[in-house]
Amino acid sequence: MAGSRIGHLFSVTTCGESHGPALGAIVEGCPAGLPLSEADLQRDLDRRRPGQSRFTTQRQEADRVRILSGLFEGVTTGTPIGLLIENSDQRSRDYRDIQHLFRPGHADYTYWHKYGIRDYRGGGRSSARETAMRVAAGGIAKRLLAHWGVEVRAALIAMGEVEIDRKRWDWQEVENNPFFAPDAAMVSHFTTLLEEVRQQGDSVGALLEVEINGVPVGWGEPVFDRLDADLAKAMMSINAVKGVEIGDGMAAARARGSQWVDEMVADSTQNNGVAFLSNRAGGILGGISSGQSIILRLAVKPTSSIMVPRRTVDIHGQDQIIQTRGRHDPCVGIRAVPVAEAMAALVLADHALRARLSRL
Amino acid sequence: MAGSRIGHLFSVTTCGESHGPALGAIVEGCPAGLPLSEADLQRDLDRRRPGQSRFTTQRQEADRVRILSGLFEGVTTGTPIGLLIENSDQRSRDYRDIQHLFRPGHADYTYWHKYGIRDYRGGGRSSARETAMRVAAGGIAKRLLAHWGVEVRAALIAMGEVEIDRKRWDWQEVENNPFFAPDAAMVSHFTTLLEEVRQQGDSVGALLEVEINGVPVGWGEPVFDRLDADLAKAMMSINAVKGVEIGDGMAAARARGSQWVDEMVADSTQNNGVAFLSNRAGGILGGISSGQSIILRLAVKPTSSIMVPRRTVDIHGQDQIIQTRGRHDPCVGIRAVPVAEAMAALVLADHALRARLSRL
Amino acid sequence: MAGSRIGHLFSVTTCGESHGPALGAIVEGCPAGLPLSEADLQRDLDRRRPGQSRFTTQRQEADRVRILSGLFEGVTTGTPIGLLIENSDQRSRDYRDIQHLFRPGHADYTYWHKYGIRDYRGGGRSSARETAMRVAAGGIAKRLLAHWGVEVRAALIAMGEVEIDRKRWDWQEVENNPFFAPDAAMVSHFTTLLEEVRQQGDSVGALLEVEINGVPVGWGEPVFDRLDADLAKAMMSINAVKGVEIGDGMAAARARGSQWVDEMVADSTQNNGVAFLSNRAGGILGGISSGQSIILRLAVKPTSSIMVPRRTVDIHGQDQIIQTRGRHDPCVGIRAVPVAEAMAALVLADHALRARLSRL
Amino acid sequence: MAGSRIGHLFSVTTCGESHGPALGAIVEGCPAGLPLSEADLQRDLDRRRPGQSRFTTQRQEADRVRILSGLFEGVTTGTPIGLLIENSDQRSRDYRDIQHLFRPGHADYTYWHKYGIRDYRGGGRSSARETAMRVAAGGIAKRLLAHWGVEVRAALIAMGEVEIDRKRWDWQEVENNPFFAPDAAMVSHFTTLLEEVRQQGDSVGALLEVEINGVPVGWGEPVFDRLDADLAKAMMSINAVKGVEIGDGMAAARARGSQWVDEMVADSTQNNGVAFLSNRAGGILGGISSGQSIILRLAVKPTSSIMVPRRTVDIHGQDQIIQTRGRHDPCVGIRAVPVAEAMAALVLADHALRARLSRL
Repeated sequence: MAGSRIGHLFSVTTCGESHGPALGAIVEGCPAGLPLSEADLQRDLDRRRPGQSRFTTQRQEADRVRILSGLFEGVTTGTPIGLLIENSDQRSRDYRDIQHLFRPGHADYTYWHKYGIRDYRGGGRSSARETAMRVAAGGIAKRLLAHWGVEVRAALIAMGEVEIDRKRWDWQEVENNPFFAPDAAMVSHFTTLLEEVRQQGDSVGALLEVEINGVPVGWGEPVFDRLDADLAKAMMSINAVKGVEIGDGMAAARARGSQWVDEMVADSTQNNGVAFLSNRAGGILGGISSGQSIILRLAVKPTSSIMVPRRTVDIHGQDQIIQTRGRHDPCVGIRAVPVAEAMAALVLADHALRARLSRL
Repeated sequence: MAGSRIGHLFSVTTCGESHGPALGAIVEGCPAGLPLSEADLQRDLDRRRPGQSRFTTQRQEADRVRILSGLFEGVTTGTPIGLLIENSDQRSRDYRDIQHLFRPGHADYTYWHKYGIRDYRGGGRSSARETAMRVAAGGIAKRLLAHWGVEVRAALIAMGEVEIDRKRWDWQEVENNPFFAPDAAMVSHFTTLLEEVRQQGDSVGALLEVEINGVPVGWGEPVFDRLDADLAKAMMSINAVKGVEIGDGMAAARARGSQWVDEMVADSTQNNGVAFLSNRAGGILGGISSGQSIILRLAVKPTSSIMVPRRTVDIHGQDQIIQTRGRHDPCVGIRAVPVAEAMAALVLADHALRARLSRL
Repeated sequence: MAGSRIGHLFSVTTCGESHGPALGAIVEGCPAGLPLSEADLQRDLDRRRPGQSRFTTQRQEADRVRILSGLFEGVTTGTPIGLLIENSDQRSRDYRDIQHLFRPGHADYTYWHKYGIRDYRGGGRSSARETAMRVAAGGIAKRLLAHWGVEVRAALIAMGEVEIDRKRWDWQEVENNPFFAPDAAMVSHFTTLLEEVRQQGDSVGALLEVEINGVPVGWGEPVFDRLDADLAKAMMSINAVKGVEIGDGMAAARARGSQWVDEMVADSTQNNGVAFLSNRAGGILGGISSGQSIILRLAVKPTSSIMVPRRTVDIHGQDQIIQTRGRHDPCVGIRAVPVAEAMAALVLADHALRARLSRL
Repeated sequence: MAGSRIGHLFSVTTCGESHGPALGAIVEGCPAGLPLSEADLQRDLDRRRPGQSRFTTQRQEADRVRILSGLFEGVTTGTPIGLLIENSDQRSRDYRDIQHLFRPGHADYTYWHKYGIRDYRGGGRSSARETAMRVAAGGIAKRLLAHWGVEVRAALIAMGEVEIDRKRWDWQEVENNPFFAPDAAMVSHFTTLLEEVRQQGDSVGALLEVEINGVPVGWGEPVFDRLDADLAKAMMSINAVKGVEIGDGMAAARARGSQWVDEMVADSTQNNGVAFLSNRAGGILGGISSGQSIILRLAVKPTSSIMVPRRTVDIHGQDQIIQTRGRHDPCVGIRAVPVAEAMAALVLADHALRARLSRL
């Protein structure tokens, strides 16, 4: 109820602050019998980990995850899986000089008013550091979905005004460059842009796309807990995300019905004997998966932690000028790629279990 | 868990199909002491009601809501409020000739695979008819929010390629035209567009904007249940919505941090002594309301129920041609305006109560 | 969150007051494909209905239940099932003279302080009248459990100091007498006791036993949501229940481990090849069903609505004498029998679905 | 949903097995501003800790709790509080020779059928070891309740056939003897009984009483989430508990209404100007606290881990004789005292927050 839990049947509760002792999570509802190891979770944690290229924050965190429970002899037992990541690099002195300032665009001002208490060290709970636990827990969800033949993957498709060319889309390429971009030809352009942004002490936004394959027809619930609604919530809950769209998304507002609809034809080569002639809907009809690929996009704003001076106030209500000096990402959208995958996986794992309940 | 409930502290559970006996809802968590009457709810139901202009379906429904419980002498008692709307116009014969066909773009195909049962009459539970109960329940939320000085309102700001001019925005105008458009100068253009669409047996999408005023600093929870995440889910749960954005939204992906941030200055005329110099964030920082206006937009796709013939399959997997003849809206985005208001109000009422819990 | 909902996967939300317009419920999570009719629910409603013998309140209620949704052609569709019972006999004038008095032993005093509002008509929401909806919803759960071979039944086994003889236990007899007692030989004794109690304007408590057969091994969750814990909550939530025990229950406090344990032996005639040599545990081990009969007992206090004058205060804090004159049951434990069955069925139906989730 | 979470607004999710690496918990919903330290939690952990007298298991566990998050400068921040206890004494070799046997009266058989997987080391998740985390989390609840003037305490009032004399009840005495008994005169009798039981390799049951003082009128929700219903669930969820009663409890079944009711009189020395002349109801009316002391009792069965040989089967369905040799408590009811306090505190803390929502 206090916001740190997601999922109903496959659920995750997280805890931990940017500069506290540790991050933790409890994953409830993973069925018994799934082979699982810490290494399964570490891979995505390493993809998300800061300090890996000059385009991400230089904070150094090993981000080693430890599984505390729910496993016996390498297999899940059906009981809750406890996860722990100790925080190692807690340079909170970086934050001493801004401890009374509200960083614009951050949650400092709203947390202060909500709780009357301020953990000024790197944003405390509001820091993107908490997404490490989303990625760790999402790793369990991914492992479970893989068991059922479902794959979740994401890519960065635009940064500022620079976009990939969808015709060159290559999933292999995503792991070959520090941007998770699926278009090798654009890597040098993204590099140039980020160098420029970094030199200006500025930051830049990004557009991400998530694709989910292998989902059978029938996942998602009617009315409020539609699969797309739950995915939208999960994506919007990621720090700095300001917009989410499914399939053709916002463009649907401009379309005519005659152009928009995805026609269906009999096709014996397909799973249910039906082929869709297009996928404008993004794989979800009436909130329920149609068996097509599920496609969604999210817009990540440029981080507000920039070196450019800006006007703000302090906790005493006095005007101040702020200039961030901490270790920050020029484009937080990059590291949001494994986070988006994790969030999508958590939603899908939950709905996979919910789908077991619809018939006698 | 089966999808028909939203909200935690202020919660709504709904039931009812397009052509079943009645629609129902139970609103739990409305505090005791709120003056409330059926008339309070009827106003928005009438705004949403079909058959009011030639631009909405000609189905005739009185949509009279009855309050079954939770009121004593005109005031809420704190116990659950039961709501009932009897379905009067159940012309299910309209659907006989398509009872074995999956309407493309509708939930027919996905419900069939999910439940193994088909209520072919107007989409059953997947019909937009269920939004009547969202509007009725949302009316209670609006009444409650009004008591606390919070106002939720929405408008249609684009239909297909035709957009309003934001400089002419006039909330008064919204109730003066059948499109809920805030720009009187565009009404004739919307009319022309819709006439054309209707004559072609086609449909068209729409863009809606919701504005929420009067929310104090501090509503919304950290991490997963951010106010924007819950709003995104609520909007995406509305039939035909394909994208949601907060504040500057999808455009954030293209921006630089130096342009994007909302600076703050001391201002003794403001509630908390602070003024923001812009509102790119849309009134939410770190998932928590900042005291600014909350702004969100949603894209509604063109309805797939059109008279243009399209390819589909039937429940036996045979190729078929379908051509909708029922009574449908050429632009479902119009009637989505009161629905979007209701959903936003439900989310805000829930978070208003949750905000009571953050401090000792 | 406001108390009127029970169950997670098979869940019921109810509304309605003793003397309001109607009682309502929404049952969410009943799987698609279950044959169901209003008659299926009416049977237990009739068993619970007041005014059927001289030993229950003379209030006249038809208690006709109407199914509003979730059914198509006599079969559940998987969508929420709305239930409605109109209140017909709303003689609230009976309560006018006590409208400012707190009835001792009732919820008048606590509701007044909780809500600051008082619906004095028969207790409003706190009246046992709300159990009609528990019975209606429980009827759906029973129907579902029957489909899976699970049967829930209950009986009254003691009233005041008068007890049945367990050696004469006969389930057939339960429906043959107005007390739901399984021992024909005790019917005349119960009759004599109740006549005496009624003539004295007094009331008497009762002891009920619930037996559930056909539950497979494995229903129930570890730690907090044990099957016995959920059953205890469900029973204790029934008006006037003051104690709940499973299997040998409270007597376990006095026992030695060597006498208490239920030994197991191989037995090829049994479902899982195992027979238990006793059932002191009441069919639940570690919170999970063992495949034996589940046995629980509940104590129902004598109703506090008696004709004997008692001391109380009014809403202005003045001393008063109260003497109930309304239509009340001399032993509310009798009509609690179908309510206990309904509550047990609701818990079991929920756990039946939860049990689908424990393995890959 | 998988059973390891309790509470709605003040909630606890736990993880951890008897012989796994660690126990963990996340406490969500503790309001910001509460002074809290690890020492606050350690006191009750030490009371529950095994190996402290010859009457509890000789397993050696330091049970040092670590707070991972949710605190800043000694005060709660309103964000989730992570708790960690590393398991130090994991002598799982004790369990090797019974790894294929189902211990009668334990959850071995039911977990096996539920999950198809067996963590045979000391019962895994079903071990009473998980109650350490209930006590740690309950410590936070107690701290919070103390801030509001509410005190939760418990005592052992009977062991087997030996009972305390309520006339000698002395809360001070509870911490002076190894049984948590409130009657100094009975300590030697309990000692004699336990010595005898231990020498026989047997075990014995116990009766516990919980008393909660300082709860204002108005905590608890109507219908299903009554305060007594939630307390009953919480108590019944404790390992080995077989019965729960509120106030006069099971005895209510035998009573007459004229004797049972708690009369009320005006009394200006009382909080709300009202005094109750008795407390048969146990401080709860209609599921809502009345302002009187809340009284409940629970029966704890004798542990089934005894040295007396008993018949059982193994996982291959073969008949076997089992004789427990591990380190076990002759009376698990003793260490259940701090657990019962913790569970009561968790329920009360949750309802304290829920009570904030009932009025405008």
